[in-house]
Formats: sequence, C-alpha cells, structure tokens
Amino acid sequence: MIGGERHLLSMADLDRDDIEQLLNLTESFAEVGERSIPKVPALRGKTIAWLFYEDSTRTRLSFETAAKRLSADTMNFSVSSSSVNKGESLRDTVETITAMGVDGIVVRHRAAGAPHRVAQWVDASVINAGDGWHQHPTQSLLDLYTAREHIGELDAKHVAIVGDVKHSRVARSNAVAFAKMGARVTLVAPRTLLPAHLDGWPVEFTHDLDEVIDDLDVCYLLRMQLERQTDAVVPSLREFHTEFGLDVRRADRLGDALIMHPGPMNRGVEIAGEVADRPNAVMTEQVANGVSVRMAVLFLLLGSGLDIVDGKRAVA
Amino acid sequence: MIGGERHLLSMADLDRDDIEQLLNLTESFAEVGERSIPKVPALRGKTIAWLFYEDSTRTRLSFETAAKRLSADTMNFSVSSSSVNKGESLRDTVETITAMGVDGIVVRHRAAGAPHRVAQWVDASVINAGDGWHQHPTQSLLDLYTAREHIGELDAKHVAIVGDVKHSRVARSNAVAFAKMGARVTLVAPRTLLPAHLDGWPVEFTHDLDEVIDDLDVCYLLRMQLERQTDAVVPSLREFHTEFGLDVRRADRLGDALIMHPGPMNRGVEIAGEVADRPNAVMTEQVANGVSVRMAVLFLLLGSGLDIVDGKRAVA
Amino acid sequence: MIGGERHLLSMADLDRDDIEQLLNLTESFAEVGERSIPKVPALRGKTIAWLFYEDSTRTRLSFETAAKRLSADTMNFSVSSSSVNKGESLRDTVETITAMGVDGIVVRHRAAGAPHRVAQWVDASVINAGDGWHQHPTQSLLDLYTAREHIGELDAKHVAIVGDVKHSRVARSNAVAFAKMGARVTLVAPRTLLPAHLDGWPVEFTHDLDEVIDDLDVCYLLRMQLERQTDAVVPSLREFHTEFGLDVRRADRLGDALIMHPGPMNRGVEIAGEVADRPNAVMTEQVANGVSVRMAVLFLLLGSGLDIVDGKRAVA
Repeated sequence: MIGGERHLLSMADLDRDDIEQLLNLTESFAEVGERSIPKVPALRGKTIAWLFYEDSTRTRLSFETAAKRLSADTMNFSVSSSSVNKGESLRDTVETITAMGVDGIVVRHRAAGAPHRVAQWVDASVINAGDGWHQHPTQSLLDLYTAREHIGELDAKHVAIVGDVKHSRVARSNAVAFAKMGARVTLVAPRTLLPAHLDGWPVEFTHDLDEVIDDLDVCYLLRMQLERQTDAVVPSLREFHTEFGLDVRRADRLGDALIMHPGPMNRGVEIAGEVADRPNAVMTEQVANGVSVRMAVLFLLLGSGLDIVDGKRAVA
Repeated sequence: MIGGERHLLSMADLDRDDIEQLLNLTESFAEVGERSIPKVPALRGKTIAWLFYEDSTRTRLSFETAAKRLSADTMNFSVSSSSVNKGESLRDTVETITAMGVDGIVVRHRAAGAPHRVAQWVDASVINAGDGWHQHPTQSLLDLYTAREHIGELDAKHVAIVGDVKHSRVARSNAVAFAKMGARVTLVAPRTLLPAHLDGWPVEFTHDLDEVIDDLDVCYLLRMQLERQTDAVVPSLREFHTEFGLDVRRADRLGDALIMHPGPMNRGVEIAGEVADRPNAVMTEQVANGVSVRMAVLFLLLGSGLDIVDGKRAVA
Repeated sequence: MIGGERHLLSMADLDRDDIEQLLNLTESFAEVGERSIPKVPALRGKTIAWLFYEDSTRTRLSFETAAKRLSADTMNFSVSSSSVNKGESLRDTVETITAMGVDGIVVRHRAAGAPHRVAQWVDASVINAGDGWHQHPTQSLLDLYTAREHIGELDAKHVAIVGDVKHSRVARSNAVAFAKMGARVTLVAPRTLLPAHLDGWPVEFTHDLDEVIDDLDVCYLLRMQLERQTDAVVPSLREFHTEFGLDVRRADRLGDALIMHPGPMNRGVEIAGEVADRPNAVMTEQVANGVSVRMAVLFLLLGSGLDIVDGKRAVA
C-alpha cells in the first residue's frame, strides 16, 4: 500500500508523508544494491507483468532490475509482438494477463488515463510507467530522491523545469511532486511548448531561462521529442538551444545547483555536451536511484505487509 | 511420456485414457497455481526452447508461466529477430538450438506438419503450439479441462464449433478432442468457411446456428481472422455477425450452456460484447487453465519419470 | 582476468598461454553441461547486459545459456526496441546501463572498435561479440577448442579459411587465433573477396581452393553474406559454389580433415548440403562448445578470482 492505495497511478494521489515514507524505504533498498549479491527474497513467488504499449527499454530495464533484486518473476507483454495488434481490446488483454496469475502490472500507454482504467478491472496492483502526457510517478520519485540526496529537504528550494513542458508527462509529474515537497517550481518554455492552460498547476512560469537561472537549486531539463517536433512548434533546434538550452555560459551561472534530465539526452539541444559531463549533472545517479525507488514501490505494493516503517524488516 | 510418445504433436495421437490422465494431472498443477509461492522444482535444470515462426504472445506467455512454475529455464528463439531471416533451413536452426542443450522445444509454425518434422530430427521432446491450419493440442486440452470442470464428463454432450472452421487449427484440434471424449460435435459455418472435404472428421455440420443453438452444452466460437478475410469469403463482418455471431438473442437461448473462445476475441464479430461478459462465458478460465495444462504437458514429457498416476508425487 | 585484462576485445590481445588456460577451463565447464542439472553458482548475483546493435539470435542465446549455467542474471538492451533509435549516443547508453548495476557488457556493433570504446568508459568487463569486420574472439576460442578436441595440438597444422574473407570478422579473428596456436593459415578467396591489404596478417593466400585442399587439416568455410553481395562482387552464387564451395568432390579429397563453419550455413553456396551432414563436419559441436567457452570467458572476467589453474575450484 502506498498512501492507502494498492496502485501507483499519479503523484497527485500521494501526500508528503507517503512520499517521505517511500523515499526512506528507497534508502534501504539502495543499500541492497551495494551488496555483493544484490538480492533479497522479498517478492519470491510474485509475478509482475510489463504491459507496454510504447517502447521504453530504459524504464522497462529499470523495473526488471528492481524485480530481479526482489526475486520476483516477470512476464513481458509488449505491444509490438502481441495480439494487441490483432485488435483485442485493452480490457480483454488485461484480463488475459491477470488470468495467467500476476500480482502486479506495470503499464505504459500512449493514452492518458489508461493505467487508471486498468486499475478498475483487476485485483493486481497497477503501476503507471507513463501514460500519454499525463504522469510518470516513479520517474518523479527517483527525481525527488536524487535531489534530496544532494540538497537535503526540498522546502523553499527553487526548481526550474525547462523545455518542452507541453508534451511531457515528466513535467506534469514533477511539477506536482516537487511542489508537494515544499519546493517552488518554475516552468521555463517558449509559448508554443507550454500547455494552453496552467490552472491548477502549483507553479510559476516564464519564457526566459536567463531570468531565473541565477536563483535555481535544481535545473531540470526535459527531453526534446525530436521525432515529434515540426517547424511550426520551434523555429529550429539551434534556436531552441540558444534560447532554452543549458549551454556552458548558463551552466556556469548555475554554480553547483543540480542539473537533472530524465534521459535519453539530446546533447547539443536541451543540454550542451560538455555540461552533461559536469559533476553537478546527476543523470547517472538518477538512473541508479531509479532501480532503488522501483524496488521500494514494488515492495510496498506487492510485499507481505510487514511493518516497514524503518525499512529494516523489508530488506533483511 | 504422453500416450507412450515423448512428443505432443496432435490430438489424433492421444486416446481417451491418455487425455484423462493428463487432465487429472492438470488438476494437481492448478492447485500449485493457488499457492502463495506457486512453484515446484519439478523441472529444475531443464531447458525449454520456444521456436516460434508466428507471433503469439498469449500462447508463449502461457508456456513461459508454466515453465517458470516448474522451475525450468527457457530460451526464446523467435523468428523475427533470428537468422531464420537469413535463410537458414529449419533443420539447421533446430540443430543449432539443440546443440546448446535443450530438453524440450515448443514449436509454432505457419506450415502444417513442421513440428512433426522437427520431432524426427531431435532427441528433445517437441510440443506443437500450433501448425498452420492443422493442430493446436494444448489449446484442445485446456478446452477439454475447462469444459469438464463445468459440465462434468463430456459423453453425449453437444458441442458446436462456430465460425471460420476452414482456417482454424483450433477447430481441427477440438473436433477430434471433444469427439474422443464422447461428445457430439457440430461444426457451424457458412459454406465458404467450411473445409472442402470433411471426410474423416468425427463431426456433423450445419450452416444454420439457430438450428442447433437450443440443444447445445458448449458453444465454442472461433476467432475470425480479420487480417486474412477478403470480401470473397464473407460478404461483410456485419452480415457474419448477424448469421453466425453469438448475439444477445442467441445467448439467451443458450441458457447456462458454456460459451468458449480461444481468444483474442473480436467483440461485435463472432461474439457480442455484452455476451462475452456473461458468467457462462469462461474465456478467462480457459486462459488460467492453459497454464495448468501446459505444466502437466511439460511435466509428463520432460519430468523425471516418477509415477504420477495420482499426480501427487509430481507436485510434492 | 584473461591475459591480465578485464575485457575480451580481440584475439590479438591474447598470447598462446592465455588461450591454453582458457581452453583448459572450457573443458571443465563442458563437463558441467553434461550434468543432469547443468548449473553452478559461480556468478550468482552478477548481472550481464547484452548490448546488441546488430541482430544475432545465435550468439545471444549462446551467451544467455552460458550465463544461466553460471547462475548470473541478464539484462537485454537490444537496439531495435531501445532509445538508441531516439538518437542517444553510445556513451550515454552505456552509462545508463552501467548505472543500473552491471558487471559485464557483451557488445555487438556494426562499427569496428565500438567495444574498445565502451571498455574505456566503464568499470564493468566488456566482451566483444562481434564488431564490424574486425573481431569476434569468442567465436575464435570455440573454434580453437573444437579443432583441438579433434586433431590435438594445432602446431604446424594447415588451416584454410575459405570464402568471403573481406567482409568477415570471423576470418580476421581466426587467422590470428590459429596462427597464435602454431598453425599454418591459408586464406582462400576470389580477388574481390580478399582485403586490399594483407600486411601484418600471419597468413598465406590463394585464389584456388583445389591447390590446397589435399593438404588441409581444417577447412573453415565462411558464411557468404547473401544480403550484402551484389553482382559486382561475385558473378553469381552458382559460380562461387563451383570455384570456392565445398562440394562433394572436394570434400572427398579432404579425407577426414575437419569441416567447420560459424553458421548459419547457406547450403548449396559455401557448402553442399550433403557435405554439411558428413561426420567430419562439426558445426553442431562448434555450437555446443560455444556455450562452454563463453562460460569460461564469463567466469574468468566476472568470477571471484579464485585460483582456477586447474579449473576445478571454478566449477565445484
């Protein structure tokens, strides 16, 4: 259970205490990853299915690694080689998977809300691994964990989320996530890459990265979806880089503020190649922490219900 | 061994006693699936290869789940990413796989008879997971098991197999399977979707579903292969649904007779969406039983040769 | 460690002693493959990633089988379903994988030298599973092992490598490998399928297979890359077979000299179908030995550093 729920669908469903409990447990699982045999039997006999309607090797491998470290079995139902192509409905697909006996389903889907629908149909726990432009909660949790490790409690810290906010589930998830932890969140994007309405987003926004850059504690860069952009949206990638990219000059102004990116990076677009290799750019740590945070999520949702307040019994 | 054979290639090779032994063992393995850790060490150290020349996520996942529950290792040789594309002969591919050390090979191939040829070349046990329009024996066994659970012994029970019989290996397998268990089997299809010759099929046939619907114990619907049909075969899907689909009116006439379908369903074509969700529509149970029946098949073919008359020692 | 290195990138990096140590250890692991439960716990808790930028089911399955027999975990990062397609740099991909925690990376890439670059970036051990036209060291090791099993020490034995030498990493690897073991190596190919320069290759060459065939101890046939050839390179496959193929007449002249091929074979092109089935054609043994040699490589690079001089403690 996370926040009293057996699913993890959106950062909006978690309150600050839920998140802190989860981040504390993540710390225990990060320690497991350091062991010479980085495995615990916590989920032995459990089966977790990947139901991925969009390719995502990185996210899938991270979940798979987390599952293996917890000794769970996995089942890979990816759209490209499946009867989904034969026109089966999402619901029938989900019922087929659950009939084979699964305890958790990790769903990635191009339609916002798909994981919520899946959650209504099944007894298994559902984890949203990205739905449309909507949410990607485990990404947010690993980002919070990584930020907290470096700059401590996030209260009143200033976080900018920069780039293609409009088409980004990471932006939506992280705006909510950092705000819940007490941070001040500023979206930085050209007019064409901001959502039409920001009502209800707990954020400020600007079209000028230079206006905020000296004040930041975290500069979070979004991936530019090169395969999606057209000339109508951004005049050119070069121009985008000039106005919104983290180049050397801006990176210098950041000082030792954190530079984060969900990956994969487009070096030379949202971030200069040289900047991506600076010590305050923590993308590699984000990836490593992603495994630990997913272990914590899987354990809380599928585990045996032991008292895990201090994380100790979970990983013994 | 099943029926004295080390392969499972066709329902035609099994007699009623073989089938009953296998269904009884399936029951023991279904019980394993209910355990909190649904695993037995029965096939530890054995390796099973999937040799799939046609996509089939559902069947492959069912076999994989069965293999994992038996603690076997698996090896996935699927055509789309393999040197099959480089023009290697089936025989050389099979010899390569077996040289790496496999105990069983599960074959799906678009050519009828391919698994039989594989069986001639190898020491490993070969299981037919669907060959052309010919056979799909594990599907038939799970269907028999599911039907028997609901309506008991199948002697003199009336089973209709409805839809595109001509292009269906499930129809061929199941006509033989249900007939062997003593059932009366009626094929129901338009003229264009029946095989040209039915000599040797242990069945009756009709072109009129309404003629038999009141008398049925099992109404088994075949998947319409939408990707294969042309206007020449069926005038339209709408017309097919009207004449041969299980709509609400016909489902009412079935009473509590079983509704079965091998999946994935085309709701609105061979079955009305509302009918698919009725309690006597047992598609989800078919999927669940598929795992148990495949555990039984793998165990009998690859297991240690223990006495498994009562299934007890197999799953201890 | 192999030859003091923690990577296996090229046969050129190994000396004869290194190779002999490795082949001796292979023998111990071949024995493991004969056990009823062919597993040892040697790499329990280790994770090996496949980073394949070219399809290769055979090589990947061989490594996977080796990894499973050593109780290692695996992680499959194949290009076709990955963010590589999204333009991520090789280096960022490698850092992502290693951040998730891997002990070894098996790399196949169409660019010669790619595995060497990967090795510079990571702490993990890197194994070259084929890079462009450059090297394929585990193939060479399994070929040496197979040859040695049949004809003993290779000193002064005569090995012909026949066919498309120019586009073959197996040819480059094996020319070096057999020469290091003391064999005399002759390349046999049409002018168009030999490299422009052979400076530094420890080999002789000829354009006439019949000139050397009576003298050979090993006739090693290369795969003709049918998908790559154009009319400009070989006039026709029929003509190639006539001049450079191992047909029945030439195979008779070989006596019981070994016939080897890395697979998959084009029967009727580089080898006559009937010849491929002779007892001195050892392709199936090559495949089987491939698993054992890869176990030895993985163990030496990722193992616990036990004294494995006699191979005994490694596999206990």
